Amino acid sequence: MNLKDYIRDIKDFPIDGVVFKDITPLLKDVTAFEYCTKAIMDSIQDLDFDAIVIPEARGFIFGTVVAQRLGKSIIPVRKAGKLPYKTYSETYDLEYGTATLEIHQDAFDTFKKVVVVDDVLATGGTSLAIAKLIEKAGGEVVSIFNLIDLTFLNGSRKLKDYNLKSLLEY
Amino acid sequence: MNLKDYIRDIKDFPIDGVVFKDITPLLKDVTAFEYCTKAIMDSIQDLDFDAIVIPEARGFIFGTVVAQRLGKSIIPVRKAGKLPYKTYSETYDLEYGTATLEIHQDAFDTFKKVVVVDDVLATGGTSLAIAKLIEKAGGEVVSIFNLIDLTFLNGSRKLKDYNLKSLLEY
Repeated sequence: MNLKDYIRDIKDFPIDGVVFKDITPLLKDVTAFEYCTKAIMDSIQDLDFDAIVIPEARGFIFGTVVAQRLGKSIIPVRKAGKLPYKTYSETYDLEYGTATLEIHQDAFDTFKKVVVVDDVLATGGTSLAIAKLIEKAGGEVVSIFNLIDLTFLNGSRKLKDYNLKSLLEY
Repeated sequence: MNLKDYIRDIKDFPIDGVVFKDITPLLKDVTAFEYCTKAIMDSIQDLDFDAIVIPEARGFIFGTVVAQRLGKSIIPVRKAGKLPYKTYSETYDLEYGTATLEIHQDAFDTFKKVVVVDDVLATGGTSLAIAKLIEKAGGEVVSIFNLIDLTFLNGSRKLKDYNLKSLLEY
């Protein structure tokens, strides 16, 4: 099965000149989504880790199913103001302005080793902020997995200190 | 197992006077999250439906695992501006101002019968908007499941035309 058959290009989204990778056809196809889940599991299951960090919002989809199938804990990273308990935060630069991500301060009170499971690696800014946030909270980033690596954006350069994994490259 | 042991009360979040139900302890506990997933499956698996609608953001967590375990398709409902393809939208009133939700126009091109799986039923405004959005897009709402029903907010009154289900009541 070629998972790229279930990922749709949407031109000029969210802004002119960008080709967005739409994963909704993959979510709609039961066989393709099961194949995708197993491929993510195969990619990370030999690593030594206790939890999967799921970044809001599409990381919630891929990370949760893989965590449950592998019997791992689930730790959410959310946009500013969404997590209700005491948080650590990390602010990073976007093309225009900044964004802030948060994690609960008690996220790593029982274990430290985590894999991040997200959907797309673009310039690497978001993945790097997530990794820094995990370390600030006392966690250890065993690997960062993205379903899709937009290699022409060279996100992996920013993340050279981490064990990066992906399933599909463009 | 009492799942309420894994849901933490956070006072005065997001605003003074509100007690927020924090599900992050449930996500962190592998046994409790598996128990929760099976309980949701038990609640809906005898219904006749083809897909689970997952509302952003916490519905992404619960809805996805249940959909995959039951072999159902996954249809996301997202906040305005997040879905990249052509969308239908539904705007509804919040306490202050309005919010808009969107679904892809091709969401129901191969089937119509869906169950919505979300985390919390409060006043019912969001669930009702999701149901209307699904109908606008050509879908049929077989049931609306929420992990938690805050019964003192009487959300079920707004949704009396739908088959409402929940696991935990407060």
